[in-house]
Amino acid sequence: MKKYVHNFSAGPCILPKEVMQKAAEAVIEYNNSGLSIIEMSHRSKDFVAVMDKSFALVRELLNVPDNYDISFLQGGASLQFTMLPQNLLPVGGKVGYLNTGVWASKAVKEAEFYGETIQVASSKDKNFSYVPKDYSIPSDLSYLHLTSNNTIYGTQLKSFPETSVPLVCDMSSDLMSKVIDVSKFDLIYAGAQKNMGPAGVTLVISKKGIFGKSGRKIPTMLDYTTHIDNESMFNTPPCFSIYTCMLTMEWLKNLGGIAAMEAINEKKGKLLYDEIDSNPLFLGTAAKEDRSLMNVTFVMKDPSLEPEFSQMAKERNLSGIEGHRSVGGYRASIYNAMPIESVQALVDAMRDMAKKHA
Amino acid sequence: MKKYVHNFSAGPCILPKEVMQKAAEAVIEYNNSGLSIIEMSHRSKDFVAVMDKSFALVRELLNVPDNYDISFLQGGASLQFTMLPQNLLPVGGKVGYLNTGVWASKAVKEAEFYGETIQVASSKDKNFSYVPKDYSIPSDLSYLHLTSNNTIYGTQLKSFPETSVPLVCDMSSDLMSKVIDVSKFDLIYAGAQKNMGPAGVTLVISKKGIFGKSGRKIPTMLDYTTHIDNESMFNTPPCFSIYTCMLTMEWLKNLGGIAAMEAINEKKGKLLYDEIDSNPLFLGTAAKEDRSLMNVTFVMKDPSLEPEFSQMAKERNLSGIEGHRSVGGYRASIYNAMPIESVQALVDAMRDMAKKHA
Repeated sequence: MKKYVHNFSAGPCILPKEVMQKAAEAVIEYNNSGLSIIEMSHRSKDFVAVMDKSFALVRELLNVPDNYDISFLQGGASLQFTMLPQNLLPVGGKVGYLNTGVWASKAVKEAEFYGETIQVASSKDKNFSYVPKDYSIPSDLSYLHLTSNNTIYGTQLKSFPETSVPLVCDMSSDLMSKVIDVSKFDLIYAGAQKNMGPAGVTLVISKKGIFGKSGRKIPTMLDYTTHIDNESMFNTPPCFSIYTCMLTMEWLKNLGGIAAMEAINEKKGKLLYDEIDSNPLFLGTAAKEDRSLMNVTFVMKDPSLEPEFSQMAKERNLSGIEGHRSVGGYRASIYNAMPIESVQALVDAMRDMAKKHA
Repeated sequence: MKKYVHNFSAGPCILPKEVMQKAAEAVIEYNNSGLSIIEMSHRSKDFVAVMDKSFALVRELLNVPDNYDISFLQGGASLQFTMLPQNLLPVGGKVGYLNTGVWASKAVKEAEFYGETIQVASSKDKNFSYVPKDYSIPSDLSYLHLTSNNTIYGTQLKSFPETSVPLVCDMSSDLMSKVIDVSKFDLIYAGAQKNMGPAGVTLVISKKGIFGKSGRKIPTMLDYTTHIDNESMFNTPPCFSIYTCMLTMEWLKNLGGIAAMEAINEKKGKLLYDEIDSNPLFLGTAAKEDRSLMNVTFVMKDPSLEPEFSQMAKERNLSGIEGHRSVGGYRASIYNAMPIESVQALVDAMRDMAKKHA
């Protein structure tokens, strides 16, 4: 009997139990084919059907308009950081970035390679513990790049700027956790390894007609149109990762889709943040209005108590709650697949800790 | 009960049964951790141990010298096609490619982007059915790029040129199938999805000291040193694919290592090629001296018999033997994990076909 671990890991992270069960079965044999999903040609009828269903589920769940393409790529968000400016920053042009953390900063660095890159605002002054709001957006930007959720700091954009400048957004850590309006963006990308599936695949949703205007020669694999034109089959796709994303999206659909998921995520977040705010021992680290529903960051008011709480968490199989070294304290990642019972288990531990030190 | 399918797919392709069994188990739970291998942080002790063991197995199996680095990347060989010239073709320099097929041609195209790229020889004149031999290698090349095995055409380099020019080799479809001398190369790369594991990870073996000399600004993710310096953990690695490669390498080690595997592969190849040469109905398409031990290509002398043989193959669960559209006929991929019994089953079908038409 497998012990029950409450998996608060920031990513790769918890996936639905039934997804892991079905993924494991497919590694033995997929669809009565006599073949494993990992030893099957990506051009086989069975695997092409997996790709088609994956595209369809993304389109359905996120309500992706017809004038948008969907691609499954490799290389994570980090490879997107260089693909974006190569494809969308014209020679002599200018792009803007909202700097809300380490990942946004890395994206800035890769854009600077290709042209003028301005930071419309940054929250670096306070260790990215908030999301900048009242900033102006120059109208001559080729795009404004946002990071919708910042895993390390536990902040999340609660709204997106209204602007005529095309929006590009790294949604790696909150895509499919809440309803979004895809039509407000020119391009959305997300490494799968939070709410969508295992590591090894990156989802890109892009508006038709935005590419081919940068005036740059782009290596074939870094040109989005290569992957769009070949339906993400220009070369061998990461088959297992895509299949497992498909399973996760099926789970999400059966649960009622993203609106239903969002309601659950709000409930989970409220449960944990309410405890942080009422418990005398703990303190949230992110600005209240910017608190992430995916990654909940907090510290103990008396840091000398942290070893004791960490030990208690370990004994209760609350796994992966150590904060990122740049913030310290704790980070509980409560992605889609995290059951509210696990959040409750963490809350219970926090309460028991408070009682002990009352 | 799963039906037994003889999986001759060109890639993704057959993997050892015990590897798929262990991979499936790890998708449920890895190492009594209570967690699946796909929901575990890549920075966790358990997964870091998987990475360390994978590096060690590559080094041991391929006898990789100490002055070589090993990396696990994403993007397949296709992404290597652009990384190579960006990192190794100096501004104003010149590189050479031996053009032995479609994949080599794609590699040429990406190099041309960055500077003078010559084809030292090409077998395109005969639909890549042979490997060019007596060609000269200009001494001022920054590297000579080879493709050790050509899946589509069923050709394989039986030796590598002796030259002072640094050698770079795409070994996607025969790495770990035979003993090679890594020290003869500056860089070796291979998409995993043939002999090493599932799709989604690319192995790179590179000599220390070769990078940082191209005079180019290289985007972070496309700079080999990023991945070497971060032990392939600059960003989230494709965890499941790497873990399954580790399992495959363990299987290979237990079987006696690459020399033992090579002997088995020679036996399998001989069995099938002997049948092709002695059977009155069939004809090999690759030049005899260049025949691949990984992908065996053949046609029927009377093409009108092909539908009948294809039907017979289907009835006997001989799967994935259709030839690539550019060659036609048949292609039997008999990678490491293919048991000789499956090769025998194909040979039996060919014999039965010949008897029927005697």
